[in-house]
Amino acid sequence: MRSNGRPFSEWRALSAVDAVRRSFETIRAANDPAAFISLKDEDQALAEAAALDAAGPEGKPLFGLPFAVKDNIDVAGLQTTAACPDFAHVAEKSAFAVQRLEDAGAICIGKTNLDQFATGLVGVRSPYGVPKNALDPALIPGGSSSGSAATVAAGAVAFSLGTDTAGSGRIPAGLNGIVGLKPSVGLLSATGMVPACRTLDTISIFAVTVADAAEAAAVAQAYDASDFMSRALPLAGVSPMPPQITVGVPLPDQRQFFGDGKSQKAYEADLETLAGLGATIREIDFEPLHAVARLLYEGPWVAERYHAIREIIEDRPDVLHPVTRKIIGGAEGITAVDTFDAIYKLQTMKRAVAPILAGLDCLAVPTVPAVYTVAQVEADPVQLNSNLGTYTNFVNLLDLAAISVPVGEREDGLPSSLTLIGAAGSDARLAGYAAALETGARPENAVAVPEGQIAVAVVGAHLSGMPLNHELTSRNAVFLQALSTAPDYRLYALPGTVPPKPGLLRVAKGKGEKIAVELWALSAEAFGTFVAGIPAPLGIGTLRLDDGTTAKGFLVEAEAVNGARDISSYGSWRSFMAEAS
Amino acid sequence: MRSNGRPFSEWRALSAVDAVRRSFETIRAANDPAAFISLKDEDQALAEAAALDAAGPEGKPLFGLPFAVKDNIDVAGLQTTAACPDFAHVAEKSAFAVQRLEDAGAICIGKTNLDQFATGLVGVRSPYGVPKNALDPALIPGGSSSGSAATVAAGAVAFSLGTDTAGSGRIPAGLNGIVGLKPSVGLLSATGMVPACRTLDTISIFAVTVADAAEAAAVAQAYDASDFMSRALPLAGVSPMPPQITVGVPLPDQRQFFGDGKSQKAYEADLETLAGLGATIREIDFEPLHAVARLLYEGPWVAERYHAIREIIEDRPDVLHPVTRKIIGGAEGITAVDTFDAIYKLQTMKRAVAPILAGLDCLAVPTVPAVYTVAQVEADPVQLNSNLGTYTNFVNLLDLAAISVPVGEREDGLPSSLTLIGAAGSDARLAGYAAALETGARPENAVAVPEGQIAVAVVGAHLSGMPLNHELTSRNAVFLQALSTAPDYRLYALPGTVPPKPGLLRVAKGKGEKIAVELWALSAEAFGTFVAGIPAPLGIGTLRLDDGTTAKGFLVEAEAVNGARDISSYGSWRSFMAEAS
Repeated sequence: MRSNGRPFSEWRALSAVDAVRRSFETIRAANDPAAFISLKDEDQALAEAAALDAAGPEGKPLFGLPFAVKDNIDVAGLQTTAACPDFAHVAEKSAFAVQRLEDAGAICIGKTNLDQFATGLVGVRSPYGVPKNALDPALIPGGSSSGSAATVAAGAVAFSLGTDTAGSGRIPAGLNGIVGLKPSVGLLSATGMVPACRTLDTISIFAVTVADAAEAAAVAQAYDASDFMSRALPLAGVSPMPPQITVGVPLPDQRQFFGDGKSQKAYEADLETLAGLGATIREIDFEPLHAVARLLYEGPWVAERYHAIREIIEDRPDVLHPVTRKIIGGAEGITAVDTFDAIYKLQTMKRAVAPILAGLDCLAVPTVPAVYTVAQVEADPVQLNSNLGTYTNFVNLLDLAAISVPVGEREDGLPSSLTLIGAAGSDARLAGYAAALETGARPENAVAVPEGQIAVAVVGAHLSGMPLNHELTSRNAVFLQALSTAPDYRLYALPGTVPPKPGLLRVAKGKGEKIAVELWALSAEAFGTFVAGIPAPLGIGTLRLDDGTTAKGFLVEAEAVNGARDISSYGSWRSFMAEAS
Repeated sequence: MRSNGRPFSEWRALSAVDAVRRSFETIRAANDPAAFISLKDEDQALAEAAALDAAGPEGKPLFGLPFAVKDNIDVAGLQTTAACPDFAHVAEKSAFAVQRLEDAGAICIGKTNLDQFATGLVGVRSPYGVPKNALDPALIPGGSSSGSAATVAAGAVAFSLGTDTAGSGRIPAGLNGIVGLKPSVGLLSATGMVPACRTLDTISIFAVTVADAAEAAAVAQAYDASDFMSRALPLAGVSPMPPQITVGVPLPDQRQFFGDGKSQKAYEADLETLAGLGATIREIDFEPLHAVARLLYEGPWVAERYHAIREIIEDRPDVLHPVTRKIIGGAEGITAVDTFDAIYKLQTMKRAVAPILAGLDCLAVPTVPAVYTVAQVEADPVQLNSNLGTYTNFVNLLDLAAISVPVGEREDGLPSSLTLIGAAGSDARLAGYAAALETGARPENAVAVPEGQIAVAVVGAHLSGMPLNHELTSRNAVFLQALSTAPDYRLYALPGTVPPKPGLLRVAKGKGEKIAVELWALSAEAFGTFVAGIPAPLGIGTLRLDDGTTAKGFLVEAEAVNGARDISSYGSWRSFMAEAS
């Protein structure tokens, strides 16, 4: 079963006016009064679109794409309610990220429903009703970004903004069969967003394809000095998936599905798909991650939610949804001493988790452990909500990035999504893995070197999966492409090197072999420290590549290959090492 | 007026046994029962020293140096009291940093007095009495590391460990006329230290000279996975002071001396000394820094102190010093919501301060704004304590490093100290500036690579005065040294290069010539863009230098020197070019 969502390519076949018209038509046809809390005036949206059409798409990468915004994020001229009517106020200014999207030609259509104050993962905690799950209206839409996910999955907009503190940007993506990109905290500015937990929150993106979500994220992101959580992180976008990655998954007895055997089977099949793309699946102890998740529920972070709505909860508690009031009211008994105690515990847990994550390119978990109906959640609102967060809660506390992508199907035809999780700043890498899962194939083609970065061709122990590859990944290097040198090189196995290393030596033009290399991109600073750490007899020169370009890359001093074995005929260090073992 | 402190050089003229003997003799002669809370058994210390003398100094950089440890840091076999007799317990294990010092041959003599639980900047809040200020016994010793500073200044030990949360490693250094090195938080492990505020604390070093303090810090530092605040930061030590630095100081009307005109005059004179070393003094708005300092006193961080002594303050509050009990008891009314509110404020202030600090190499402030007598502080214990923290309180909250160094003298002969403050990880740079202030001269023959920078050996068109030298200077590269390669290289004039360039090629060991090179230092980022711009057939490898060291430097691909003229006999590109013109 697939959602009716429409990728950017379909929208881009239309003029901006036609796109907006189709957006409103689809919203009317969906007949879901709970999906949006407010819509932009249709005539105004059409007028904006007409102005765009008249000006043309130049310099507007998101030209004419209709999008929706979760109603805890400001859009100038529209109300922000956070799904609490008493909180409603008209925003004077669009949120920083919304403004960037609008400046790029995207057109906001309306504000979507959510679990009140973004507190919940179910999508049923709103006085504005329950948005329809786009795949099966009996199912919950998931939350808290319920309307944003449902409206993308219904094909009403090209993409939407959600927010994510404990999973709100992932759970509803999984339940509606679309992509949910949960950026590293600080990649997208939170200025103009109603906070849930300011130290953990991020705006997130829903779209139909990974490339679409990543494109919107790349436009929305920018350092914002006025948001104290904003960080200058590597660019978003999509890096191609390298030939080999290592993916951590929970030990079999730590996988929690709360009795949903269909989800369990689908997860196992999805991991096989991942393995088929070249990923090494490594079972790891997830207990430390589950412990972090528990800390979120038991700890003081709910006081951040209280801080965000202090006036309402203290002066007018009755206007809150009863479940929301109960959860956030729990902050009242928590002291400063308790808070520091939890901060210490979290920091200690981070240290415990770090060695688990080191050496992995990402984690792969089910986005949702189980699928619930609205009726089930209404009968047991807190426990089932808590179950849903099993694989999402720990992510922001540990400062990780994530992306949820539909991979296979459950036995009942519902889509099954994996969430890939990596270090802060790994957004583009995760998107690359997700894109491969989406299409079932690793991309073979090159991508451009990100602006401001430096590409380096590695030939030996720095190749993906090799012992020194971490010297690249720990520097947030991004894999670009596997290709070959021009046939002007000879490759030698350098004797006595630990780990074993080859040396690449240029010979007369056409008198050598094409040798396989991988191209990785690093920031200038990361490249600087990387080069500084390269020991003799290796160094960095300029390599001629088979596609006629050149790139910085590893070379060996000629003096060092005296007596070394010429392994050029293998064509790659990987082939030589495979045979050697 | 100078302290009677003895630098490492004086102690190193003695055997370990004689050093320990002198240490105990000096302690007895000082006749200050309040300086130490406990002493190591003298016979045991002498036995340790004798064992060291027998084994010899090999591999023991701090061989035979007696040191003292603040009594809130564990030393195996001695009591830790934190100046609270009811807290006393014998430590089974030495603190991580103490163990590293002992492993390096330093000998712990005893545990020093402090403001109880490191709460205070005065040195009079201890049931063990008031340690004597080493310069004038009427004056407070300063705190909280009162005994550690006083005993170094009395010449009883070579160095000592203090701790610093709000100034405890700097104020007593200033008041006793010695050096107080306050490392970046996380540079020295806090494992085995009784916490004050775990998110702000660091162990600190007192010594008579900057070089001594930096040497001890360099031995004590190491990443410690068991301390969640531990960080892998650039190494401590002393970097040379470059010819030009820019130093931020408060605007004249923001300088607070609380009526102490002698301190004010001395500060102005000290800044002139700093300017005389080549520093550009820039007056900046200090209000944002003072605002951070106020946040420390008004904010929730006192709950960290409460957390550290929770059992005592809840079960046996009467055993606490009354001032300590009152201060730490203030944590009781603070909520989790208050805590996050203060965390947000601090993060926002950090963002406001960042642009002020950017573009400055460091700040230079008075260590103490005023000098107080014991009688004055006893009459007004809280306000004068607060005054003392004027220039220290904001430092750890903003994650900065600092060092206090005696510079000039006040009119009354007391030493006047400056505290230099820089970004986390700038410890070695700050030590370099402080060392220049200490001696009154910038080191002329600086050859050490500045901390965090990368040295590159250039051989041709990048030499000073040559056409491409601007590629270094425009990147703020710093010239370090002119020297030669090992005799393992040949130099070629590369045909057809514009501007003319040579190529350096390594040959068999000893089968080449020594070729003149210049060593320049760049930041990692500048080095990265520099390397990225080097065209084939040149590249960056590792050069063997004539002094036995190695450095990154220019090499040529062997294939490119076919047919090129061998100009090795000139010994340098400069000589060849001089003759060629």
